[in-house]
Amino acid sequence: MKALLLVSYDGTDFSGWQRQPGVRTVQQVMEEAAERAFTRHIALTASGRTDAGVHAAGQVIEGEFSDTIPPEKLRECLNVQLPSDVKVIRSCSAPDGFDVTRDAKRKTYCYNAYYAESELPLFSRYAARLKWRPDTEKMRLAAQLLVGEHDFAAFRAAGYTSKTSVRTLFAVTIEEKPIPGGTLFSVRVTGNGFLYNMVRILAGELFAIGCGKPEGITRAFKTGERSALSVTMPAQGLVLESADYGIAELLP
Amino acid sequence: MKALLLVSYDGTDFSGWQRQPGVRTVQQVMEEAAERAFTRHIALTASGRTDAGVHAAGQVIEGEFSDTIPPEKLRECLNVQLPSDVKVIRSCSAPDGFDVTRDAKRKTYCYNAYYAESELPLFSRYAARLKWRPDTEKMRLAAQLLVGEHDFAAFRAAGYTSKTSVRTLFAVTIEEKPIPGGTLFSVRVTGNGFLYNMVRILAGELFAIGCGKPEGITRAFKTGERSALSVTMPAQGLVLESADYGIAELLP
Repeated sequence: MKALLLVSYDGTDFSGWQRQPGVRTVQQVMEEAAERAFTRHIALTASGRTDAGVHAAGQVIEGEFSDTIPPEKLRECLNVQLPSDVKVIRSCSAPDGFDVTRDAKRKTYCYNAYYAESELPLFSRYAARLKWRPDTEKMRLAAQLLVGEHDFAAFRAAGYTSKTSVRTLFAVTIEEKPIPGGTLFSVRVTGNGFLYNMVRILAGELFAIGCGKPEGITRAFKTGERSALSVTMPAQGLVLESADYGIAELLP
Repeated sequence: MKALLLVSYDGTDFSGWQRQPGVRTVQQVMEEAAERAFTRHIALTASGRTDAGVHAAGQVIEGEFSDTIPPEKLRECLNVQLPSDVKVIRSCSAPDGFDVTRDAKRKTYCYNAYYAESELPLFSRYAARLKWRPDTEKMRLAAQLLVGEHDFAAFRAAGYTSKTSVRTLFAVTIEEKPIPGGTLFSVRVTGNGFLYNMVRILAGELFAIGCGKPEGITRAFKTGERSALSVTMPAQGLVLESADYGIAELLP
């Protein structure tokens, strides 16, 4: 039986989702937990890889589990075996022919960063620190350039290729809220898919525009050159909020 | 020159504020940082002690620093010596005759707890987990019993005594907000002073009332018995938000 797991993790102490020799990854820790729970290897696949240090509030994972376990019980079976930095929020059976990497209708990521005169210990685990205070109105204007179907080739770490770099963003929103000692800024992006490092590059460009840099998005779309855009933001500010398959049980 | 520091720390890896042999405390780490920065011992005093695991967004600390350093520069001098889980947000000089333990007009603590069907890794560092979903209307009604001047003797861990257990609470508010996979509840308390474990006991009683327990506050005030109230909530949900001395530089 193919089952689906809605999973959250704190990425701080993980070298990302994908198994790699010699480092602790979410896939390895979850597959080891499943092996302890069910005494056989169960391969797990995620809606998409997350990088080292990136968090997930609503990652979706599929695996072939035994028919003898009710799918909604998988959560408890796995959670007793999992460490406290990765937990299954909900579990359910998969529809016929379901494919977790192919079938996501949309995904939402949120990038969090704060501006403050000093480092803020209560925010530095889940947000990057900005050197300057961005103007969110400038960021919102630039964010509108990103919405729609575009070739995001420039919004990708060098050396990575996929068949196509055309993606559609449905929404890019900017929020600002006061926190003790500073201000927290959130860039939330919903799209039909994302390239490697795309959200971190996109957030870096929007924060730079907010701090006065002329926008490079128009040229990035025209030329496909990474150099048209600003820095890639650090991993700890990024969280995969949700992967939407039109299945209510999988929305966090 | 007496100077004041507005300080934030993540309490997770500290055994509280106060120096104790053989464990890592905020006072020890900060006094060691000050000694490295200024090559002499500088005793630091806090607005109040925080327990092991309790966080601070706006702790206020005083110390006698050299007259040769502008007080607003103390922040940078100390921050380069401090680890990333404790930082000075702002620094300023103290008014004549200032006493950090005596002169606080009010302090605000916030207790955070979440209800979810599973543990939530992105919230468990700064919030406790509730076994049942509390009814915030019941909590708000009970919170009003706490506001005003009362003898809080029952709201104190056994074995601890202070001259008087009479304190005034100016406000007790309850907030509820959805988070991915659950709901976050916050109890925010502002008062002229707090007894040992008082906020964690008060929050435990309010959450228990929200989950259907008959209120024990009336009997606790009448009898002074700790047993009239529910459990003490765990440390990681508590944050000292601010200590208000009527000095603008010290508000986070």
